[in-house]
Amino acid sequence: MRVHVHPVPEIVESDVCVLVDVLRATCTISAALDAGAKWVRPVPTIEEALKYRGKAILAGERNSKKIEGFDLGNSPLEVRPEVVGGREIVLTTSNGTKVLEKMNCSIVVAASFPNLPSVLSFLKRYEAVHVVCAGDGGRMSLEDFLLAGFIARMDEDPRDEARIAAAYASLVGRKVKDEVMRSSHARELLSLGYLKDLEFCTSMGTMSVVPILEDGVFKAVGL
Amino acid sequence: MRVHVHPVPEIVESDVCVLVDVLRATCTISAALDAGAKWVRPVPTIEEALKYRGKAILAGERNSKKIEGFDLGNSPLEVRPEVVGGREIVLTTSNGTKVLEKMNCSIVVAASFPNLPSVLSFLKRYEAVHVVCAGDGGRMSLEDFLLAGFIARMDEDPRDEARIAAAYASLVGRKVKDEVMRSSHARELLSLGYLKDLEFCTSMGTMSVVPILEDGVFKAVGL
Repeated sequence: MRVHVHPVPEIVESDVCVLVDVLRATCTISAALDAGAKWVRPVPTIEEALKYRGKAILAGERNSKKIEGFDLGNSPLEVRPEVVGGREIVLTTSNGTKVLEKMNCSIVVAASFPNLPSVLSFLKRYEAVHVVCAGDGGRMSLEDFLLAGFIARMDEDPRDEARIAAAYASLVGRKVKDEVMRSSHARELLSLGYLKDLEFCTSMGTMSVVPILEDGVFKAVGL
Repeated sequence: MRVHVHPVPEIVESDVCVLVDVLRATCTISAALDAGAKWVRPVPTIEEALKYRGKAILAGERNSKKIEGFDLGNSPLEVRPEVVGGREIVLTTSNGTKVLEKMNCSIVVAASFPNLPSVLSFLKRYEAVHVVCAGDGGRMSLEDFLLAGFIARMDEDPRDEARIAAAYASLVGRKVKDEVMRSSHARELLSLGYLKDLEFCTSMGTMSVVPILEDGVFKAVGL
């Protein structure tokens, strides 16, 4: 299996792509679907999200904080079953939901650490995948590149970026939480009081949901 | 000491910057100065280089091959003392010499594996450095990021890119040659018959020269 790793967002045209925004978009998307949400619609701007007011739950953040007038922030802890069960959610975030505009892919999977084992199982059926890290404003994010590395380990002869990422993931191993806590993004979230979000987002394999983008919305697929 | 790592070229404004183009520009620059060249002038284009015809030795590559009409390629093995001793050299390469246009820095050091120990000694005197990887056409190069990692290990609390690079360098350790041989660029150079260049460029600590950019040319500084 060939795994291409894109350390920062760029135009990607491919069959199978994986979106990675560990803190916290892809984690929130996975958690919402795991909690029974009907679907999650990622949109790039606040204005776009506001078009769905009254029809869907509005969720999102700017500068890591909940957007004024929105129902929820970009937190996997807020999308509980009693809040989102059976509901439609519109999500806009600083990095993750903007990346999708650059991805021209037949299949887009949202990957986070909680659903990573399930995502890896799902990807096994494909010959090549492109893993796109959301990063942070055009810079690499430690946590996204680390997750990409766990996927890159499925490539037996990885090239450059994928090889670096796979080596990094091998070195970190089971200490994902410790490592991610040292990232710039985690330090920022910690300073804002989001320790529990960080613990949730760095827990490996706590959800089995695999979110797939279809007609503009992420839905859960069974394995 | 704070080490900022730029995995691909970008605008950098800083006091102290390190240019990294392991295969092979920064290695050729170092080797030329080690062999007694007066200076090496990096220029972005073939046209710019041709202005120095008759005044300086013209060296460079496009698609890894020597440029037609030039005296030398971009090979550290060609810049022998009997060829370049006391001479001025103008060098243009596909990636490395173009990056300099984006670097607005008071001091620019050229780093390669052969002169890396000397570069590390030289950098110790500064509080912060920016390491700029030439990469390959906007993509990360394994070999440049790996070298950046050895510099990043001087940062006690490295952030994101620097932390990933440092971890990668720690994992690779003394096996620099084995690792670099697996890079896309090394595979291409191997297919063109440049095995000896690769062996030279991946040998750690064989030269003590530290090339510093001054008035548009790299000159050797003593430590």
